[in-house]
Amino acid sequence: MNPLGRSWLLLSGFVLFYVIYLLFGGLVFSSLERPVEEQLRRDLDALKRRFLNQSCVSAAALEHFVGQVLAANRYGVAVNPNASSDASNWDLTSAMFFANTLVTTVGYGHTTPLSDVGKVFSIVYALLGVPFTMLVLTACVQRLMYPLVAAPLHQLQRCGLEARPAAGVHFLSLLTLVLLCLFAAPAAVFSALEGGWSFLDGFYFCFISLCTIGLGDFVPAAKPEQDFKQLYQVAVMVYLFVGLMMMYLLLRTFHKMADLHGLTTFLQLPRCEESDQEEDREPIVENGQSAAAAAQKRPSYNSISDR
Amino acid sequence: MNPLGRSWLLLSGFVLFYVIYLLFGGLVFSSLERPVEEQLRRDLDALKRRFLNQSCVSAAALEHFVGQVLAANRYGVAVNPNASSDASNWDLTSAMFFANTLVTTVGYGHTTPLSDVGKVFSIVYALLGVPFTMLVLTACVQRLMYPLVAAPLHQLQRCGLEARPAAGVHFLSLLTLVLLCLFAAPAAVFSALEGGWSFLDGFYFCFISLCTIGLGDFVPAAKPEQDFKQLYQVAVMVYLFVGLMMMYLLLRTFHKMADLHGLTTFLQLPRCEESDQEEDREPIVENGQSAAAAAQKRPSYNSISDR
Repeated sequence: MNPLGRSWLLLSGFVLFYVIYLLFGGLVFSSLERPVEEQLRRDLDALKRRFLNQSCVSAAALEHFVGQVLAANRYGVAVNPNASSDASNWDLTSAMFFANTLVTTVGYGHTTPLSDVGKVFSIVYALLGVPFTMLVLTACVQRLMYPLVAAPLHQLQRCGLEARPAAGVHFLSLLTLVLLCLFAAPAAVFSALEGGWSFLDGFYFCFISLCTIGLGDFVPAAKPEQDFKQLYQVAVMVYLFVGLMMMYLLLRTFHKMADLHGLTTFLQLPRCEESDQEEDREPIVENGQSAAAAAQKRPSYNSISDR
Repeated sequence: MNPLGRSWLLLSGFVLFYVIYLLFGGLVFSSLERPVEEQLRRDLDALKRRFLNQSCVSAAALEHFVGQVLAANRYGVAVNPNASSDASNWDLTSAMFFANTLVTTVGYGHTTPLSDVGKVFSIVYALLGVPFTMLVLTACVQRLMYPLVAAPLHQLQRCGLEARPAAGVHFLSLLTLVLLCLFAAPAAVFSALEGGWSFLDGFYFCFISLCTIGLGDFVPAAKPEQDFKQLYQVAVMVYLFVGLMMMYLLLRTFHKMADLHGLTTFLQLPRCEESDQEEDREPIVENGQSAAAAAQKRPSYNSISDR
């Protein structure tokens, strides 16, 4: 088969397998969750019947009332007798927390803009904020590549390991470190601080957040009665930033390891940039040189037209 | 100032500006949303008082009932008289839709796993699915780079434009195309199909989705009484896939333009890979060569230790 045929076959295979993967996920989620959902629905129906029997409220009036309560709840406004009246979802730290979930693309959605102006501002804010956050994260990861990737690898190779096993050992160590410091430890802290969160809930929150999925079924520091709520919210923001940075670092390390094992070549994907390795060293070494080299290379974009 | 000093100063500036940007966002969101929230809260309190006055229900009983309803609602189970009893959030297409929001990291969170097994499966599913989705998207974007980026650029340069203006004109055309086909048109469709969505709501949904923020305050095809619900859900999944692909393509085009204008060099960021330009052409040209070239380059990861 010619290379073009092979390339298209691989792509079609990818897309087909993607659809199968979604179908498989759909089947598993459906079979796992449907019984739980039906039980919850039955419980709720029973509760409603009991409530209607014990009171003189008409079903229609109750349904209207509940509809309104649910609509308000969609915007984070609850009929909550315990909440002090000044507790808002939009005090300064809560609003910063929301802004942070926008620009990191986590987007829990536990609070969402209510007004049209708020929606327009969200769009403009994220339009500038998302690329800017990526820029800051990339810049931070670049400074961390030498102490956390290049230096340990150098050390491992000096201890007599070959390039490939050294990369493997290094990646596994980094993975363990991330699992302990950014998943297990925070999960324990969250399950201790948040009433009703199990360790699994905490771990699930960490994972869903650091993959930037952000379902929003578990959001820390969201209860109005939380002690030191503002400090807690700032801590979660710092956790998100550091966590995303380390996930990105881990991904880049994995990409480099995949290059080394020829995986990216096999899958016909772009390899981790050669220039990376220059950038990863301490900038002092070749900052001047790399700028000059980059300037020389610049017309290469142009070269597309030379084919 | 030496290059190391400049580099750290730039990084500190980035981080400081990031904090200021969050603070600014917090201030604006807080001032925009707080009045709306307070109004909603007052309305809801008035509604509750009226409901309690017109009925013989005790406040405590009502609050207990509403608490249970809200807890069920968190999992997407509503006390809804209109819904047919077989409408589930976890039928096959809905579960596939959920799986799709997981692997694309959009994560609306309009439905979330209820069971512990469901949470564990979500973690494992996303752990494999997120990188796999990125792989499929990258592979598709690579095939689109020639017809949508390299070929139009070539055409523009043949018409006598220099490299930089050609890149600018091309990027703006691509941006307009994406804005029309992936934001404006779908927004119009969504506002027509979904009762109660304005055009702005539709546009806001498209933006929040294609940035993978996925707040989940607007989710199409989520109403149980929706006509052709399953077909609609599949269409939204296709929209998300194509949309994310085009956003990624746009981002890569922007990155290349930034390279050309020396912006990435100025910000000391990795440049768009040189190898990209090879990969972007039709694979038939140098598929054999590039594999050989990659094999030759492979030991370069190793070269970190050579410093």
